Amino acid sequence: MAKELTSRSENYSQWYNDLVLKADLAENSAVRGCMVIKPYGYAIWEKMQQELDRMFKETGHVNAYFPLFIPKSFFSKEASHVDGFAKECAVVTHYRLKNSPDGKGVIVDPDAKLEEELIVRPTSETIIWSTYKNWIHSYRDLPILVNQWANVVRWEMRTRLFLRTAEFLWQEGHTAHATEAEAITEAKKMLEVYAYFVENFMAVPVIKGVKSANERFAGAIETFCIEALMQDGKALQAGTSHFLGQNFAKAFDVRFANKEGKEEYVWATSWGVSTRLMGALIMTHSDDNGLVLPPNLAPFQVVILPIYKGEEQLAQISEKVAELVAKLRALGISVKYDDNDNKKPGWKFAEYELKGVPVRLGIGARDLENGTVEVARRDTMTKETLAMDGVENYIKDLLAEIQTNIYQKALKYRASVTREVNSYDEFKVEIEKGGFLLCHWDGTPETEEKIKDETKATIRCIPLDGDKTPGVCMVTGKPSAQRVIFARAY
Amino acid sequence: MAKELTSRSENYSQWYNDLVLKADLAENSAVRGCMVIKPYGYAIWEKMQQELDRMFKETGHVNAYFPLFIPKSFFSKEASHVDGFAKECAVVTHYRLKNSPDGKGVIVDPDAKLEEELIVRPTSETIIWSTYKNWIHSYRDLPILVNQWANVVRWEMRTRLFLRTAEFLWQEGHTAHATEAEAITEAKKMLEVYAYFVENFMAVPVIKGVKSANERFAGAIETFCIEALMQDGKALQAGTSHFLGQNFAKAFDVRFANKEGKEEYVWATSWGVSTRLMGALIMTHSDDNGLVLPPNLAPFQVVILPIYKGEEQLAQISEKVAELVAKLRALGISVKYDDNDNKKPGWKFAEYELKGVPVRLGIGARDLENGTVEVARRDTMTKETLAMDGVENYIKDLLAEIQTNIYQKALKYRASVTREVNSYDEFKVEIEKGGFLLCHWDGTPETEEKIKDETKATIRCIPLDGDKTPGVCMVTGKPSAQRVIFARAY
Repeated sequence: MAKELTSRSENYSQWYNDLVLKADLAENSAVRGCMVIKPYGYAIWEKMQQELDRMFKETGHVNAYFPLFIPKSFFSKEASHVDGFAKECAVVTHYRLKNSPDGKGVIVDPDAKLEEELIVRPTSETIIWSTYKNWIHSYRDLPILVNQWANVVRWEMRTRLFLRTAEFLWQEGHTAHATEAEAITEAKKMLEVYAYFVENFMAVPVIKGVKSANERFAGAIETFCIEALMQDGKALQAGTSHFLGQNFAKAFDVRFANKEGKEEYVWATSWGVSTRLMGALIMTHSDDNGLVLPPNLAPFQVVILPIYKGEEQLAQISEKVAELVAKLRALGISVKYDDNDNKKPGWKFAEYELKGVPVRLGIGARDLENGTVEVARRDTMTKETLAMDGVENYIKDLLAEIQTNIYQKALKYRASVTREVNSYDEFKVEIEKGGFLLCHWDGTPETEEKIKDETKATIRCIPLDGDKTPGVCMVTGKPSAQRVIFARAY
Repeated sequence: MAKELTSRSENYSQWYNDLVLKADLAENSAVRGCMVIKPYGYAIWEKMQQELDRMFKETGHVNAYFPLFIPKSFFSKEASHVDGFAKECAVVTHYRLKNSPDGKGVIVDPDAKLEEELIVRPTSETIIWSTYKNWIHSYRDLPILVNQWANVVRWEMRTRLFLRTAEFLWQEGHTAHATEAEAITEAKKMLEVYAYFVENFMAVPVIKGVKSANERFAGAIETFCIEALMQDGKALQAGTSHFLGQNFAKAFDVRFANKEGKEEYVWATSWGVSTRLMGALIMTHSDDNGLVLPPNLAPFQVVILPIYKGEEQLAQISEKVAELVAKLRALGISVKYDDNDNKKPGWKFAEYELKGVPVRLGIGARDLENGTVEVARRDTMTKETLAMDGVENYIKDLLAEIQTNIYQKALKYRASVTREVNSYDEFKVEIEKGGFLLCHWDGTPETEEKIKDETKATIRCIPLDGDKTPGVCMVTGKPSAQRVIFARAY
């Protein structure tokens, strides 16, 4: 096979890069740190968008669009936000180019300098809350439940396709509420939406939790998160939902008259997931043969390949396939029939394996005679020959089974590398093996910092569900309210 | 009514601005020239996107995503493109901010200067063709039929909401072909897609044509366009589709081996429509009472308002409404039931009129007794009381009728202000009255330039359909192949 991948055991990181490139998901561009999302990769992202957008709307949210640029001074308005976000940013300083005096190309026109520099949004809290100031006057204007689909830029020094890129695509929800309780409920509700999406569509199990102070969003009171575990034992933060308190309302002076006519600052949340989810999707399920896609997000769930000699055989097969395609589509299954004559069946088999199509059907001359079809599933790499008659219902069930199977597989893997660790010495040994380590921690940023410095592990989250037994910190011996999850992370 | 609009006759331009703001479509932001698209406006844009995206996919296109930033040097690679686009652009020169030494806010870190400046894309031909170089080697790699939904930035000095903004949202198709004929066919096909969308969804009649050399896209061999006419007699370019020849393939050295194994440069098209279409939609149909939306793009096609005294009456009405809503939805009609208790019916009537909801239903206590409902249509501002029984089918037909009616109204208006003009003296008088002027022109850029300088009118297009009788140029008396359309334009 021309497109052979590095194996995971040989070099996991290289395997990932190979896979993203060879499955035509994305590639690096001429601009440092910015990626090109190729059509096949973008089709998966579009499916993610569709499902998320539907869920956002079902929970009462509407979409809007805010400017790409943010005036530099806005970043200074919320004290902790500035430290977290106003650093590695793309800065627009000029608004015009002109022809170079030497006649070779263009140069920046020094006369076209902006009075105040503009920052390409790394996140939009500041520009949105400066806008909300004009939208909110009374409790009648609340809640505001707005989401934005947008591109954002963070000038990352070390980038990796999907996982960490200078520009990425995401959605950011920004809501405004009359009460603290309502805002907290909203932040938790969106965490549930994310968890539901990631588990049921991406088939990636997640742990819902709260971030420690060190890992909290810059400007948040509380950051809720979902944490996933990749096949190499490293954690990946799959989504965050922030309760922002009144921080941004105070920074941008957004007040409302409550039912009693008294002025109060507005309560806020923000929440987002990004094209980083593509990285989680790829790394959770894929294998040394290529991508493994969950049927619920595959651009096409079934690919049908004819195996034939000559035009006449192809015509006979195509006629039979047309019937099957119609039956599959009637069941809501997306199908591609690849009768492209430029490539041999063997090449196509490998190609669709690499691209992770959940179910592959092969139909040859003998199948026509026997009324059969070869059904291959990508997740287990198994094949069987079945009667063509009624196979559409079998495939429908099979897609559901694959969706469940890859989720269960990921869940089992996670369980196998999640364990309780009770001493810091043991921790230092165990963290090298990867996985989630459940440990007692004294709750201080200092202890977390020390552990991070010495082991590169961070607290992924303080789990919302599960065991809440108190204990003593593995490092300091001080009291611990419950075990938290440590891991090395992407 | 609190939200009164300036009338069109008083000040058309002010009427437009009032309407965009008061109907909650968009507003200016804290960043000069950049708009905030508010939820109601964005919901209309989303419906446009959905329909266009479906049509693009039905014609074989796929979506992808390319970087926001373009290296400055890329603009110098295509000679005419640089003059057209590499001028009024947002230029990123730095990638980091740091705390100000005086402790007040942040400043641009002078040590974080980019080696080569990055331009925020004003259009993506250059970055995309630099990418296609790696995608295209053989005729087997062609055609490439890619579309991108994205934000772009052009540093306009005078901006107007939707019509001309520094940042706007759009789609840009970029296709690559093995032959000239195939590329021209593609460019024309997409023009037809645009015309179909604008006429059948936006209900805006358009004239399909070709741009004169002066108005052609920078880098194109031929620019196809659709031109619409606004109610003030000014033209608005609603979409363009460019045949780019081999210009960008040569600029970025994109060649392919043809079936005979010979190397050739690739043929290209690009095509786009933007949030500018929102301006065309608003200005074509709306009136002094507010927005008039075509049912095919209205975020909700029907609004139902209860007229009641007390909780009990509301409960009775709501029960009846629930039945009706179910019936309407079963017919594929989108409905909002506004039982918000904070606002009076009169306020709501005015609000939904302002927002252009195609059909408004009112149900009061007497309607409950009589089994009736009041049906008001937004386009004609007429009302009638009908039997509730079976009204859902009536409304379905009514929505289709409204869609046709507003299109026909716009078509009639356009016909009433489209006329042939045969002398330049007459032209100078007629152009002041607005509308489309069909005139003979000698085909030279010099004559077009002279007319533009003296009358502010430009050639909107050389129509593809209609009268092709030759004549003599109204300015120079030289031969003219056919009449072309002149107008003042947005």
